[in-house]
Amino acid sequence: MNKLLIVGTVAFDAIETPFGKTDKILGGAATYIGLSASQFDVESAIVSVVGEDFPQEYLELLKSRNIDLSGTEIVKGGKTFFWSGKYYNDLNTRETLDTQLNVLADFEPVVPEDFKSPDIVMLGNLHPLVQKSVLDQLKRPKLVVLDTMNFWMDNTWDQLVEVIGQVDVVTINDEEARQLSKEHSLIKAAAKIEEMGPKYVVIKKGEHGAMLFHGGKVFFAPALPLDEVFDPTGAGDTFAGGFTGYLAQTGDISFENMKNAVVYGSNLASFCVEKFGTERMQELTSKEVQQRLYGFKALTQFDIKLT
Amino acid sequence: MNKLLIVGTVAFDAIETPFGKTDKILGGAATYIGLSASQFDVESAIVSVVGEDFPQEYLELLKSRNIDLSGTEIVKGGKTFFWSGKYYNDLNTRETLDTQLNVLADFEPVVPEDFKSPDIVMLGNLHPLVQKSVLDQLKRPKLVVLDTMNFWMDNTWDQLVEVIGQVDVVTINDEEARQLSKEHSLIKAAAKIEEMGPKYVVIKKGEHGAMLFHGGKVFFAPALPLDEVFDPTGAGDTFAGGFTGYLAQTGDISFENMKNAVVYGSNLASFCVEKFGTERMQELTSKEVQQRLYGFKALTQFDIKLT
Repeated sequence: MNKLLIVGTVAFDAIETPFGKTDKILGGAATYIGLSASQFDVESAIVSVVGEDFPQEYLELLKSRNIDLSGTEIVKGGKTFFWSGKYYNDLNTRETLDTQLNVLADFEPVVPEDFKSPDIVMLGNLHPLVQKSVLDQLKRPKLVVLDTMNFWMDNTWDQLVEVIGQVDVVTINDEEARQLSKEHSLIKAAAKIEEMGPKYVVIKKGEHGAMLFHGGKVFFAPALPLDEVFDPTGAGDTFAGGFTGYLAQTGDISFENMKNAVVYGSNLASFCVEKFGTERMQELTSKEVQQRLYGFKALTQFDIKLT
Repeated sequence: MNKLLIVGTVAFDAIETPFGKTDKILGGAATYIGLSASQFDVESAIVSVVGEDFPQEYLELLKSRNIDLSGTEIVKGGKTFFWSGKYYNDLNTRETLDTQLNVLADFEPVVPEDFKSPDIVMLGNLHPLVQKSVLDQLKRPKLVVLDTMNFWMDNTWDQLVEVIGQVDVVTINDEEARQLSKEHSLIKAAAKIEEMGPKYVVIKKGEHGAMLFHGGKVFFAPALPLDEVFDPTGAGDTFAGGFTGYLAQTGDISFENMKNAVVYGSNLASFCVEKFGTERMQELTSKEVQQRLYGFKALTQFDIKLT
């Protein structure tokens, strides 16, 4: 079984959408990535940090999904990273109400011995120096995927560019791709980002789907149209977990197989948004995943004969 | 050869985009629909009206594409419909600078004898009473497709709802679908519009592609990613021309074949936006169309085996 190393936050979220609001619930990029990747036959581990206030049941939940938490530090007397946000009516815009870094402020990631030669690495959205520090501890993996956001472009540009230069795939949303590349056209943006190092660029467009770019080639997967999106939190990380989980399971990092990985990622993300937080991902069965893939085929595949 | 009846404006446009601006050039919904449909083996006719100021060369251009203009009235002493608009930096928003209805104000469409039993009818964006007046002159065609816009929802709601009740397919953009259905979710919006009469709904999302809905089924075709979009004018009408032209050529109005029609429409629209006005559509060769379909396949088709 191939190894997937996941780096990212394990956290508390408090979420408000037009449909309701939650108290502190389980959140964090690595949580969503891990739950999503657990739909595949992979050995995964999360490198992260939580405080002493983090419920044992949340840790048990992740462990029950065959996720190794020996690299997830529990800081004595420390408080877990907390994020609170509110989505507006169209669910495309959100406002951060509160961010408490807590134990994340001094996070020094330590990769467990067993995962120092992983097949695939998923660097979730974190300070680029933390992402780099993880890479420095590894023997060169088959594929390194990095997620980031505008905050790091605004505040740690040089460090971000440095770590991006060391990875194979960048996943990023459309506005961030434009900010990173200083290009409006997504084709040009992806080409510029490829010049920074990564051979592959995934641009996430939320409800408008995801695009995979590689050396002038493009693949596009729509988001599955849903009756209602309930809570978009974690959709991008769930996509990343599906993308890397599928690549780790198959061990095939060709462009053709990455197309499939984008479809799997989009498919899993379509479940994530159906309930608050990680709720839907916790109860999700492989049968449901498989059934919705039929929906994806029907949605996108056509039969034009070309001569 | 199957017959395609096109109803819509033949007009002058003056366009300003971030890349430049034009004087009065050839425009109008029926013009774009006709040029696009002329990529297929169909007999088409345009029912429209122009003024005496309309250049003979524009009429010759359309005739050279095997488009029957016997139903396009030339009003003596009249002035042709004129629209002028300006696009902003992202090309997703535009402002109408000037609209001069001129001969369109008193337009009473007359369908030529030869086209009173067409196979397919494309009712371009016009006053719903004009659209209805055309339908009243026809023996029931195989398929009637209607395009409309928010202006008619704001000003002629009852007449619009009446004519929508008489057609098979509505093509409409996402915001207009929401306005027409009073639903935010596009799935729910399409279902509501189907309840109004049409069995099929095409929702156009510009750079984010197009969706085809029918009885709970959905198909999605992305817009082909382009290095630059030069001028979006006419893209929706070019889509409609490709959609109906392909359906008329094949004579197959099944949902499966409509998927292909959506792809052909999207493919043709991707050319339209590459130059000002109708310029690109005038020079477009069938070889270019065919080649770009390969791009569409590569963009969207994947190979996940389902058990």
